[in-house]
Amino acid sequence: MKQYIEDNRERFLSELFDLLRIPSISASAAHKSDMYRAAELYKKLLLDAGADRADVYETKGHPVIFGEKIIDKKFPTVLIYAHYDVQPSDPDNLWSSPPFEPVIRDGAIYARGANDDKGQGFMHIKAFEYLVKSGELKCNVKFIIDGEEEIGSPSLPEWAAAHKEMLSCDEILVSDTTMIDEKIPSLNVGMRGLSYVEVEVTGPNKDLHSGHYGGAIANPINTLCSMIDKLIDEKGKITIPGFYDDVVELSAAERAMLAKAPFDIEEYKSFLNIDEVKGEDGYSTMERTGIRPCLDVNGIWGGYTGEGAKTVIPSKAYAKISMRLVPNQDNKKIAALFEKHFMNLAPKGVKVKVTPHHGGQGFLCPMDSKMYLSAVKAITDVYGVEPVPNRGGGSIPILADLKDILGANPLLMGFGLERDVIHSPNESYLLSQFFRGIESIALFYKYYCG
Amino acid sequence: MKQYIEDNRERFLSELFDLLRIPSISASAAHKSDMYRAAELYKKLLLDAGADRADVYETKGHPVIFGEKIIDKKFPTVLIYAHYDVQPSDPDNLWSSPPFEPVIRDGAIYARGANDDKGQGFMHIKAFEYLVKSGELKCNVKFIIDGEEEIGSPSLPEWAAAHKEMLSCDEILVSDTTMIDEKIPSLNVGMRGLSYVEVEVTGPNKDLHSGHYGGAIANPINTLCSMIDKLIDEKGKITIPGFYDDVVELSAAERAMLAKAPFDIEEYKSFLNIDEVKGEDGYSTMERTGIRPCLDVNGIWGGYTGEGAKTVIPSKAYAKISMRLVPNQDNKKIAALFEKHFMNLAPKGVKVKVTPHHGGQGFLCPMDSKMYLSAVKAITDVYGVEPVPNRGGGSIPILADLKDILGANPLLMGFGLERDVIHSPNESYLLSQFFRGIESIALFYKYYCG
Repeated sequence: MKQYIEDNRERFLSELFDLLRIPSISASAAHKSDMYRAAELYKKLLLDAGADRADVYETKGHPVIFGEKIIDKKFPTVLIYAHYDVQPSDPDNLWSSPPFEPVIRDGAIYARGANDDKGQGFMHIKAFEYLVKSGELKCNVKFIIDGEEEIGSPSLPEWAAAHKEMLSCDEILVSDTTMIDEKIPSLNVGMRGLSYVEVEVTGPNKDLHSGHYGGAIANPINTLCSMIDKLIDEKGKITIPGFYDDVVELSAAERAMLAKAPFDIEEYKSFLNIDEVKGEDGYSTMERTGIRPCLDVNGIWGGYTGEGAKTVIPSKAYAKISMRLVPNQDNKKIAALFEKHFMNLAPKGVKVKVTPHHGGQGFLCPMDSKMYLSAVKAITDVYGVEPVPNRGGGSIPILADLKDILGANPLLMGFGLERDVIHSPNESYLLSQFFRGIESIALFYKYYCG
Repeated sequence: MKQYIEDNRERFLSELFDLLRIPSISASAAHKSDMYRAAELYKKLLLDAGADRADVYETKGHPVIFGEKIIDKKFPTVLIYAHYDVQPSDPDNLWSSPPFEPVIRDGAIYARGANDDKGQGFMHIKAFEYLVKSGELKCNVKFIIDGEEEIGSPSLPEWAAAHKEMLSCDEILVSDTTMIDEKIPSLNVGMRGLSYVEVEVTGPNKDLHSGHYGGAIANPINTLCSMIDKLIDEKGKITIPGFYDDVVELSAAERAMLAKAPFDIEEYKSFLNIDEVKGEDGYSTMERTGIRPCLDVNGIWGGYTGEGAKTVIPSKAYAKISMRLVPNQDNKKIAALFEKHFMNLAPKGVKVKVTPHHGGQGFLCPMDSKMYLSAVKAITDVYGVEPVPNRGGGSIPILADLKDILGANPLLMGFGLERDVIHSPNESYLLSQFFRGIESIALFYKYYCG
């Protein structure tokens, strides 16, 4: 296996770079043709790697690629989920090299999608290729490559439900998350859910001169700021009535187990260059991102934002606000609670509109499953230490949906690192993690299917 | 006079339209050459109107035009201040016709600068032209056409101080403000000052995935919102320590006089389509904009503001914040107090930077002066009713500076109306106000110099 990787190293990178050169940004309508280009390339990669078949399927949104290799219907079936869409690259001026011109610097690949999820998804195609070519594959493998993960996979649930038979599987395996550290490998046994909304505050029906009206009317920006400020109280609690109703409090024992994952608060602060962390009172930083929900403004805009000064009171101000949820919280219920609360926060003098974007449920993966234990063995072989279980703070809403539709548990075997700064400028992926990932995945099949 | 206007109506409009077609946006470096084009056109207009001389002067920023007609050094001298720069036109998609392609619709000129201040400044050139051609001019007239009013006239004070002799005058006359209504003409006897700052809040040193970090660190957008919210308390008072120290409270008699200006709160709310006004407790809407200071966010931005959703915690969030000041408040002192207070509001986990933009002092004009009384007579002749004095909520910082440098009082004889929505999309200027303005200015000279 190591030899195969070594012999094909340059080809692997060349193929991955071809994927990374396609700006398959699902959030932007301007990139529609890039989505199709990427989909066709994934289809080719799956066929070249040894799939019996691979096809590009239309959905209500961007296309999805499905491929499979059926060795024997009696064997267990692993469904690989990955996605070919990427986050927008802006602000482009902060990239050291162009986001869609992949380069290797200091042992890492730099490009939008280098990690999330082109780099990580590609490891699965190459581990699969090795197993097919070496004749070692002892189970059936199916692939779903989603084109809308970064926008909440709005079309995939319907498509998956319509193709339930074709997608039937025993387990869902995903590499789209991080490890704690190269030296402290970890497996994600749970993810947070997500509720994402956009809010619009309208004051006067037109932009106004701030001299003529300043001091006499509700300024929509000041008002939006005030409303946002009221969403979290001084103890770091979200103020939406009913928000915590469905949150399951972990037992002291469970919290103690999760606290075993090594974590250095000073290193964390230093990595982010902040003098203090901030969050819900009574919880550690790891708990705040792992087992507790949160609320963040992801974007805000209104009024004059160009160079220089403009003395305007704008008619409207906007914000994009997301809430990370823990398993058992329902994202649609939370979006509805948010909307009700936010409307209630609106003072006289403004009108408020709340538009829900995508959402997703959180989920947990059983730690006594053969899948989990196989992944532990594989990673232990490659890294020399046993991975620790942890709870991911991020959300992959589609996995909770696939779990429901297909009745199979997802396991998150991620090889990203914090340093990769996915979603940010200069996203990267360490070559060492990329190659160890391929090896770990191949070994996973050995333990799981053997 | 009326006949002259009637005979030259089409030429006046054609000349003004040539001015309006030049996008002389002082805030944007991209429009540097447009500034020079506009300056040269003003020079030509002044010479054609009958100025002895007119020249384009370089400053540290955009050029200024100076022109003059000296009839007799023993006569009093009136200095006309106007500006040829305009506000940015964005958002352009909200304009019914392109901002720099002037058109006449429903009796009004629509274009950026139609009122502020190309339209109003141009009235002075045409009144001057009439007086020169008819031989009725019995005083000396000087013109300053500023290119940086909309960005706070940063270069003009130094230039004016260096050309103090050339600019010497008895009075400063300006048309860059509004009347209460076509049927309720008014004269501005005071303007508010302005202190304008830009703030930057930095959280983590890079944009982060909101799933991985959400709930564990201070989000700079949430933090900025919270800090902005703390700037104004529930009674509408600005919370900056010392902010009100130099504010002169008006006597009950003064407040009663100002309250004579007719004002219909329902009409005001209906014009803005708001269900309630908002401001400092204990003051009327007219007082809130006329005699009280205020604080407004003029722009805010941070994180992802494109279409769709991006789950990011940005490294930085920004806002542009302006404070309108009343006479006796010093804008530099206020900017310093703001900076100190805003830094104090910053919680741990973020870094804050405050950058002062331009500022300006407020001022008052004596109501027993010959200038004021001449303007009253002129407007009464044209409108058939006596104008009421009022205090403008806006700021023309350079006028306080010119008052100091030249030792002359400014009077604001504005012919704009609220419906003109200066600084907003679809800025307009009523033709009836434009032509009555020319007539009123010509009559002003008759009473003032006669």
